[in-house]
Amino acid sequence: MRQFVVVGHDAPTTPDFALDDLAGAAGRLDVLCRCVNSAFFLSHAIREDVRAHLVLADSYTVTFEGRDLRRLNPDERSTAALIRNALERREDAIGHQPVESSPGVSIRRRGFEATLDALAPAATLLHLHEDGAPVVDYDPPDDPVFVLSDHHDFTADETALLTDRADARVRLGPKAIHADHAITVAQNYLDTDGFRSY
Amino acid sequence: MRQFVVVGHDAPTTPDFALDDLAGAAGRLDVLCRCVNSAFFLSHAIREDVRAHLVLADSYTVTFEGRDLRRLNPDERSTAALIRNALERREDAIGHQPVESSPGVSIRRRGFEATLDALAPAATLLHLHEDGAPVVDYDPPDDPVFVLSDHHDFTADETALLTDRADARVRLGPKAIHADHAITVAQNYLDTDGFRSY
Repeated sequence: MRQFVVVGHDAPTTPDFALDDLAGAAGRLDVLCRCVNSAFFLSHAIREDVRAHLVLADSYTVTFEGRDLRRLNPDERSTAALIRNALERREDAIGHQPVESSPGVSIRRRGFEATLDALAPAATLLHLHEDGAPVVDYDPPDDPVFVLSDHHDFTADETALLTDRADARVRLGPKAIHADHAITVAQNYLDTDGFRSY
Repeated sequence: MRQFVVVGHDAPTTPDFALDDLAGAAGRLDVLCRCVNSAFFLSHAIREDVRAHLVLADSYTVTFEGRDLRRLNPDERSTAALIRNALERREDAIGHQPVESSPGVSIRRRGFEATLDALAPAATLLHLHEDGAPVVDYDPPDDPVFVLSDHHDFTADETALLTDRADARVRLGPKAIHADHAITVAQNYLDTDGFRSY
């Protein structure tokens, strides 16, 4: 199982945003939508062995489950609509129980730290960082969780948390790239067994 | 100089499409917009050494020039607006002369074959194909031109043309991926000198 956690610092926590202004009033939801695209799409298929968690303003986490996903399309707008649908169900998410808003998409009340706590025990947490070790020198683990930030850097608190929890700090290349591009490169790294097996 | 040619088979050739329906009535222009994003964006910069050519229904080619680009944002919608602006100037593109519709974005009357003819002499044409040689075994050339197709496969005629003109046929991994993801992986391949230098 491959997992991705993307922290959306400015992301909406209510569904009252316009699909026409994802990069503006919707708090750069376009970034998170592209991350979902990169996590799941193959040319003519969805990656079923993937789970992606979008942490919205440290309040809610929307999880996409590849095995169950339906109605996911590659464009930003339709993915934003799925996130909006999830936010419409936010009041039904009691405690830490998730609520499924459409097939393979669920929402729960859970911030960044609780999301890491829930994932860490059974997986290898990889913090993507420009000062990390070259990923090419690191053998792909069986159950990687890549943790990424949106268009902002991680905050000091998030970085401290990651320093404490992550199993490794790796970098994907010499240049800092967008979160969705990082997911695409990470997928290729895993698909090719660390760029070794084509 | 890195270049990307993306063939948009269903792409619009007039500006009368809605920005709200890129994945529908606008002929999957969302795919081409994501390709532009993958070609140019670094975390906090535009890649200046990149040129991307979108071939619209074998009729017009819209070229994005990294060195001159202004007003490019990462979201699909705003990139589609730049393409629409270019199509509004299509009647001013006489013969093979380009017309610049916004800084770094120009349109000319040029189909796929003529685009390849114009680029091939000074560059190394790379045909991305699942039956190609593993790109990891291929040294990155100085002036690569990656040629990609949108959500459709290349037609038989396009494939024949590429077989004739391409310097190499390479694959980026064991799985067929979307064109914009392929551009992201190709950029990483070039950034890391063929996945060797981090």
